[in-house]
Amino acid sequence: MIVVIRMSSLFLRTLREDPVDAEVASHALLLRAGYIRRAAPGIYSWLPLGLVVLRKVEGIIRDGMSAIGAQEVHFPALLPREPYEASNRWTEYGEAIFRLKDRKQADYLLAPTHEEMFTLLVKDLYSSYKDLPLYLYQIQTKYRDEARPRAGLLRGREFIMKDSYSFDVSDDDQVRSYQDHRAAYIRIFDELGLDYVIVRADPGAMGGSMSEEFLQPSATGEDTYVRSAGGYAANVEAVTTPVPDPIDYAGTASAHVEDTPDTPTIETLVDLANERFPRSDRRWNAADTLKNVAVVLRHPDGTREPVVIGLPGDRDVDPTRLEAAVNPAEIEVFTDADFEATPALVRGYIGPARIAPEGSTEPQLGIESASGIRYLLDPRIVSGTRWITGANQPGRHVFDLVAGRDFTGDGTIEAADVRAGDPAPDGSGPLEPARGIEIGHIFALGRRFADALGLAVLDQNGKQVTVTMGSYGIGVTRAVAALAESNRDERGLVWPRNVAPADVHIVATGKDDQVYTEAERIATELDGVGVEVIYDDRARVSPGVKFADAELVGVPTIVVVGRGLADGVVEVRDRRSGEQENVAVEQVVPHLRALVDGG
Amino acid sequence: MIVVIRMSSLFLRTLREDPVDAEVASHALLLRAGYIRRAAPGIYSWLPLGLVVLRKVEGIIRDGMSAIGAQEVHFPALLPREPYEASNRWTEYGEAIFRLKDRKQADYLLAPTHEEMFTLLVKDLYSSYKDLPLYLYQIQTKYRDEARPRAGLLRGREFIMKDSYSFDVSDDDQVRSYQDHRAAYIRIFDELGLDYVIVRADPGAMGGSMSEEFLQPSATGEDTYVRSAGGYAANVEAVTTPVPDPIDYAGTASAHVEDTPDTPTIETLVDLANERFPRSDRRWNAADTLKNVAVVLRHPDGTREPVVIGLPGDRDVDPTRLEAAVNPAEIEVFTDADFEATPALVRGYIGPARIAPEGSTEPQLGIESASGIRYLLDPRIVSGTRWITGANQPGRHVFDLVAGRDFTGDGTIEAADVRAGDPAPDGSGPLEPARGIEIGHIFALGRRFADALGLAVLDQNGKQVTVTMGSYGIGVTRAVAALAESNRDERGLVWPRNVAPADVHIVATGKDDQVYTEAERIATELDGVGVEVIYDDRARVSPGVKFADAELVGVPTIVVVGRGLADGVVEVRDRRSGEQENVAVEQVVPHLRALVDGG
Repeated sequence: MIVVIRMSSLFLRTLREDPVDAEVASHALLLRAGYIRRAAPGIYSWLPLGLVVLRKVEGIIRDGMSAIGAQEVHFPALLPREPYEASNRWTEYGEAIFRLKDRKQADYLLAPTHEEMFTLLVKDLYSSYKDLPLYLYQIQTKYRDEARPRAGLLRGREFIMKDSYSFDVSDDDQVRSYQDHRAAYIRIFDELGLDYVIVRADPGAMGGSMSEEFLQPSATGEDTYVRSAGGYAANVEAVTTPVPDPIDYAGTASAHVEDTPDTPTIETLVDLANERFPRSDRRWNAADTLKNVAVVLRHPDGTREPVVIGLPGDRDVDPTRLEAAVNPAEIEVFTDADFEATPALVRGYIGPARIAPEGSTEPQLGIESASGIRYLLDPRIVSGTRWITGANQPGRHVFDLVAGRDFTGDGTIEAADVRAGDPAPDGSGPLEPARGIEIGHIFALGRRFADALGLAVLDQNGKQVTVTMGSYGIGVTRAVAALAESNRDERGLVWPRNVAPADVHIVATGKDDQVYTEAERIATELDGVGVEVIYDDRARVSPGVKFADAELVGVPTIVVVGRGLADGVVEVRDRRSGEQENVAVEQVVPHLRALVDGG
Repeated sequence: MIVVIRMSSLFLRTLREDPVDAEVASHALLLRAGYIRRAAPGIYSWLPLGLVVLRKVEGIIRDGMSAIGAQEVHFPALLPREPYEASNRWTEYGEAIFRLKDRKQADYLLAPTHEEMFTLLVKDLYSSYKDLPLYLYQIQTKYRDEARPRAGLLRGREFIMKDSYSFDVSDDDQVRSYQDHRAAYIRIFDELGLDYVIVRADPGAMGGSMSEEFLQPSATGEDTYVRSAGGYAANVEAVTTPVPDPIDYAGTASAHVEDTPDTPTIETLVDLANERFPRSDRRWNAADTLKNVAVVLRHPDGTREPVVIGLPGDRDVDPTRLEAAVNPAEIEVFTDADFEATPALVRGYIGPARIAPEGSTEPQLGIESASGIRYLLDPRIVSGTRWITGANQPGRHVFDLVAGRDFTGDGTIEAADVRAGDPAPDGSGPLEPARGIEIGHIFALGRRFADALGLAVLDQNGKQVTVTMGSYGIGVTRAVAALAESNRDERGLVWPRNVAPADVHIVATGKDDQVYTEAERIATELDGVGVEVIYDDRARVSPGVKFADAELVGVPTIVVVGRGLADGVVEVRDRRSGEQENVAVEQVVPHLRALVDGG
């Protein structure tokens, strides 16, 4: 049932000033224009206008999901511990979820996402390959106990998500399900008019193989990513380093240990090298040094594994990339006790090996001699590259240490920071950093949840096969914020027509009864032909306030009924372009109906 | 976007047998027909067909609320403790709500109802009488930690409610808001086709003056109420006792104390009285005795107040009525310690007063002499009634003790049980007990929440006045269960058309390709003209199974495309009446379109 929304009775108070707690422009405008109100940190109430926008966004998402044959269901938010225990996420989530006990002291959680429940439901109902593929989705309230809720709807603790899940018998089918959802997301975000980039994402904690995020480029976004002019885009976790060709090291000088007193940093080491051991061709720089960083991996079974990461001295370890690279292990600091337990590693002077004087009987030192310590190398450290690095003796470094000749690693690791100017892995040009708002995420889960919860079906040959799954999310409330962020100007919100709280905002100006009679008639007739109307019928409010409110609220078409009536016209303004035209009073209803249709 | 629902891909498995955990017929059918699935005790997931029905019920409720000018908003379910602390409900709810802490150890609850938040929101936005009346509502997921969740959706722990609230400046205006909501509820439940009675309800813990429940009469309902043939209906808590006229006691014999050994019960007392002190006109019966029940009231401020309730000996105290009568105080047992602290009350022989021998110097005993103990009387104990009751001496009772002459109470109380045959208070005939499902509740809250949270507006005279509120609820998920409960037969569900998951269920029978081609065409054409279709396109499923599924699912019109095609007809069945007719194939689409329109 459409009804004319009247400003005289609409539950709304617009604010002229930005609220102090509004961190980003979209948040301030949604508060000022009376779309949302804060109820608790990261928890918001939806006022009438906001709820209309939210429902329209939901409707567009629903249509997009329906178009690929996804079926809508609805799960509870309050869920028992057991399924999440089976998948190990009860523990994995740590402090990031809300947990509670019922009156019988049974453990429950407020679900942040529903992989387990969907898996169990499909297990409950289906048993044959003939039932698959299956796409299920819900639009549902979710909970995360964010450490730092911020920016209004952008990072909330109670929020609405569309989460869908695909179920297939084979990996090939799963690729098709993934592509179906990818296409649906493109359709949905296009329909919403949101600008987005699709970035490669690290599969992270969820396991699986394919993973991409839909990010709205935005300086206020929480997600960082890198992109190239040629179209590459990825989370830094997902960036791979182009591997250089190996270098022929025949004829390279032998490694030699040198005294390098007072060189606690890469910078001091480079300065000393340039002063005491200058190169003939050019000056030494940080990229000539090999930095060795010791860390400890804590594996999911609780075991601690010390490892050393070797990377060019001009780069640092990026904790985000390192975490993603070693997942599901976690990173811990390499402590004093660890150094004591590993005498082969000399703090500050770690190197792959101690190059001992020939014939020496000194004990071997260095990473390669520290049994049980893996040495993981940055992909740039290919065979034939030569380095200045620690000599495993205090105050000494080794020069001309050649990879492949003097040392080798136990594998490579993508842990070095990605920098502006680094080449994109696909050869599409130099990378540059960017920020965005994550509005969608698609994700091949593989068999993690099906394995944990026993979801298998009979295949064509009557054999039980574990189902492979995909998980696909859209932040619905966040999409509303993203829309507000990208559809605004200095006067307020500027909604695209398909998500606006109404099609037309009628402003009646002046004190003349005829104005209100005529505006009322237009509002009612528009309502009668299915045009959604906000009608500012407030008699004792000045035109200035009414215009300011109309522009703040951001309905795409503003109709001014006022002085023009004497000439038989009303003014029709486009909120976005500011263009205005006079339309004959008797033509205004069909004119607006056509405008909305053509919208 | 309407799409044909195909049984070949619909996420559904019907069950032939009632699940063991289904306690009531509607619950069993909703499970068997694949509308819902249990996720945890009292917590359900909605499958595709169930979700369609739920959304249609919500739509009808939304229209009904919109028709009285109520505006929709949406509050969070996860709420901070503070507002509920201010209203005292954080404590009052006891174990009945889910409580939790966030990572900063702040207290939160999962809201069972939102009076506090609505009050605060209106306080945030509004400040003048000109802004009122205001009706706000939401359709939202709520939580209660029920001790005994049961009967599927009928008493759940996570459930959907429509809750609305009215805000007025005066009590008169509040009456109008109450009546508006009452009319809206009548319209909504009529539209849903639910049978209901409107029963007077005790305002209970919420305070306020007017309170009525909408109950669907049902043997499986949790709510008991009483009704008369003349149209009276009330919760037992709300039943008032017709007060008899006083009796002239002039000439009644004086009270006299008698030995009544071995009379621990009313029954033994009556027997002894008939044997030893027979009446001339008739035999004594239990209604001639005055039973005095001692209890302790615990007041909200923590104080304990012992009281004695006097009622005719043929009746018992009804704990539900007593609780409602003393609310917000709670009832506690009158303990041994209480008897010790009150020597004036002689256990087993409590009476209003000890009738001591004339001139006696024995200490006064009995309720009237026990200072600080209120004596509350059943309304039937009017002046002039005469009683056998305790003499405050072990083994003795007093006879011919006359109310108004020998004792008086400190007021009346509605605590005695209500019985079949008791007169309705409005004179509409004898009461009979009944059971029902509470589907709605309307409620004048008064100023409790506005007082607690400081919601006041300026009135016409520029004076701050506290706002008066109403609270109005409809159990949305419960309404779905109530609809299933009242729309079913031995073969399955029988949905009314306006909430059915589809308008038409097409069953294609046989293996002939032509059948499926024709059924497909009909399904597509119906979809094209806006008729919602479930199409059973399963090729390898027997007609018997398809018919059984169609009848279980309960769509109002079943269309059979099969053998009749040879004669150019399809069969159109009415699910409710079982009537069937043959319709020419080329006429079936307009025929069904007209059938749906004619509803």
